[in-house]
Amino acid sequence: MKVENTEAQMRKGILELCVLSITSREAVYPSDILSQLKMAKLIVVEGTIYPLLNRLKKAELLEYNWVESESGPPRKYYKTTSEGNKILNHLQEHWNNLQKSVQQIVDTTAATH
Amino acid sequence: MKVENTEAQMRKGILELCVLSITSREAVYPSDILSQLKMAKLIVVEGTIYPLLNRLKKAELLEYNWVESESGPPRKYYKTTSEGNKILNHLQEHWNNLQKSVQQIVDTTAATH
Repeated sequence: MKVENTEAQMRKGILELCVLSITSREAVYPSDILSQLKMAKLIVVEGTIYPLLNRLKKAELLEYNWVESESGPPRKYYKTTSEGNKILNHLQEHWNNLQKSVQQIVDTTAATH
Repeated sequence: MKVENTEAQMRKGILELCVLSITSREAVYPSDILSQLKMAKLIVVEGTIYPLLNRLKKAELLEYNWVESESGPPRKYYKTTSEGNKILNHLQEHWNNLQKSVQQIVDTTAATH
């Protein structure tokens, strides 16, 4: 059992929450999403973000528009759909509950050390 | 894509952290671990906890002793090994960093709404 696998599992679930959150604000294109994840110290590579965006699009939690670019080909701008916003709220609540659960367990442990 | 899957992924990674944390305090038997997880509102069934304990034991992050019981057969009491405590510290740090990352993204989103 590798600690890296456990850490990867922890991260996997929250990436969807983070992407839905970023695109709920305004339409953004993938490089922008990547920069925002990186700014928050979530290291995500392009090979991870594109399949995730496709999955969220297919589930109709994200939609995109093509936007013309002055410096190159048109770009896909992604935005959270209203269904996606509902899911985002659920995930956020679930995340908050998980944080409380872990905190409770870790606090109990620390208190008896 | 089901929101339940994403939520399950979020939980999966933290269960190892929680179990290692619970057994780092004192030797406990599986039903006790389950009760403590339940008290922290992490719903875990027996079918989940036993394979997890075996995996952590096999990775030498947990060890157990047989303890006689007055009311039935002897029980396995699990305890985090010193290697397990190292991993626990890593996982806890990783968890703290993840919380900060998600918070940063969610805050940015909220601020511009």
